[in-house]
Amino acid sequence: MSNLRDVAHRQFLRLQDEICKAMATLDGHPFAEAQWDRPGGGGGRSRVIQDGRVFEKAGVNVSAVHGVLPPEARAAMRARKADLPDTDAFFATGISLVMHPHNPMAPTVHLNYRYFELGDGSEPAAWWVGGGADLTPAYLFEDDARHFHACHKQACDKHDPSFYPRFKRWCDDYFTLRHRGERRGIGGIFFDDLADRPALELFDFQRDCGEAFLSAYLPILERRLDLPFTDAQRQWQQLRRGRYVEFNLVWDRGTVFGLKTDARVESVLMSLPLTARWEVDHQPEPDSPEARLLAVLREPVDWIPLEPRSG
Amino acid sequence: MSNLRDVAHRQFLRLQDEICKAMATLDGHPFAEAQWDRPGGGGGRSRVIQDGRVFEKAGVNVSAVHGVLPPEARAAMRARKADLPDTDAFFATGISLVMHPHNPMAPTVHLNYRYFELGDGSEPAAWWVGGGADLTPAYLFEDDARHFHACHKQACDKHDPSFYPRFKRWCDDYFTLRHRGERRGIGGIFFDDLADRPALELFDFQRDCGEAFLSAYLPILERRLDLPFTDAQRQWQQLRRGRYVEFNLVWDRGTVFGLKTDARVESVLMSLPLTARWEVDHQPEPDSPEARLLAVLREPVDWIPLEPRSG
Repeated sequence: MSNLRDVAHRQFLRLQDEICKAMATLDGHPFAEAQWDRPGGGGGRSRVIQDGRVFEKAGVNVSAVHGVLPPEARAAMRARKADLPDTDAFFATGISLVMHPHNPMAPTVHLNYRYFELGDGSEPAAWWVGGGADLTPAYLFEDDARHFHACHKQACDKHDPSFYPRFKRWCDDYFTLRHRGERRGIGGIFFDDLADRPALELFDFQRDCGEAFLSAYLPILERRLDLPFTDAQRQWQQLRRGRYVEFNLVWDRGTVFGLKTDARVESVLMSLPLTARWEVDHQPEPDSPEARLLAVLREPVDWIPLEPRSG
Repeated sequence: MSNLRDVAHRQFLRLQDEICKAMATLDGHPFAEAQWDRPGGGGGRSRVIQDGRVFEKAGVNVSAVHGVLPPEARAAMRARKADLPDTDAFFATGISLVMHPHNPMAPTVHLNYRYFELGDGSEPAAWWVGGGADLTPAYLFEDDARHFHACHKQACDKHDPSFYPRFKRWCDDYFTLRHRGERRGIGGIFFDDLADRPALELFDFQRDCGEAFLSAYLPILERRLDLPFTDAQRQWQQLRRGRYVEFNLVWDRGTVFGLKTDARVESVLMSLPLTARWEVDHQPEPDSPEARLLAVLREPVDWIPLEPRSG
């Protein structure tokens, strides 16, 4: 394993340990762990809580895989990036996490950071990093949205003042259900294909973002997880869970790609909620809390004022 | 409207009337109807029962749309068919139906028949028909599988003895969750791109298949819909509903295509169940009814003996 591969992988394993420790304490249930091997090379460590006290489902997966790129992967990558070196040998390591709390007042959260390398490992022929974290509430609490964004802005600002505004918009763009004209949630940060500064600097950036996760999410979770809720609110949460499934199965590059290239199904689909619901032509009441959420999903908000918009 | 367009569309409207009438009588709830227009041309008539007595969700949609093919549609079609005439004008009419009963002993059913035409309507530049019907039980009753296949075989045999064996295998191939190595259900018939005999003959074939639907499905539904079931059986049904969602959102050509080309979302997603469930790494007990279903989804069965297999 080259040094960069190792540095990235260990950093993700440390982050997994730190997050799982905090979340298991909160939930009162331990994560069930599965170690798995990938037939083509490498493997991973998946940790899951299902039907816990706090979480309907919470999964944190770290993998480090290598081998020969499947043709679909190669084609998709070349469509995105013009001047790739002529090799199919690859290495990829990443952490991905989705947590769906039971309580409809407590938002779902997603995090993913990854390092990708082309080449046989002696010297990377090309490499890049990507990732981000974003929040998906069923009910909007503006304080929560501002807090989640502020924590990630702080991690970004340590590295480059242009990062947060760029990556906040990238997140709104990426997590879009195009068929519905809705964002999946209230955003966060998202970036991909970063390679414009030394890898170790970008790893530090990913580490700071990763470390922002607990301070961004835990206080939100703690103040929402015991709020009272009605059956109707639970049903609205289930409909939003359905939208989460739609995004992940139709639009999420990593999920669709994983399912079509024989990745480990249980890890790829760990992100799906335990339960979901689809009603035909459901419309929330005007001016209801449900309608207020939809409004910000249709027209994303700058939770932290960015530069004044022109015009 | 050219004569062929009209003949196909009217035939689908008649089938929708016939099926909805029988199903509304059985359920005791009327279908809610929505007429809709497609901004690019044409429209449809959707009928839905949601949370009825028998059906968790049942939708029957007929549409007849025309206009200019979106570029994605053109590309997908050209990838499949070599010598298409050089026009982007199209017409498409079809019926699609999905019924998800509440009772886990009563299978979900799907039907779709369609006629597609390239050209501006004066004289079709190219045309073809497609469709089929298939059954998705949560619990396997071999009698039901044999009956459903026998009814469709009978409709096929009236037209060509080669149809049923070909279309039965095509159905098993098409309705496959490749990422899981499972078929969605126990099959039926499926065909596409048929144009090798006069259109009116193929419409008659589609009509006979469509008319086989009620005799294929109603007796099965009637003998299963009041069977007793446990909470655990209901949960297994919910997991199978999750698989149904996976197939439709990841692998079904029509659904994915519709979502990516601005078709009417509520019609495209009418096929999704009201509720679904995903558990991490769920494995049924060996030799259980749940394991017996999985076995036939992994290794499709010839419910009606076909020609002896060689070797």
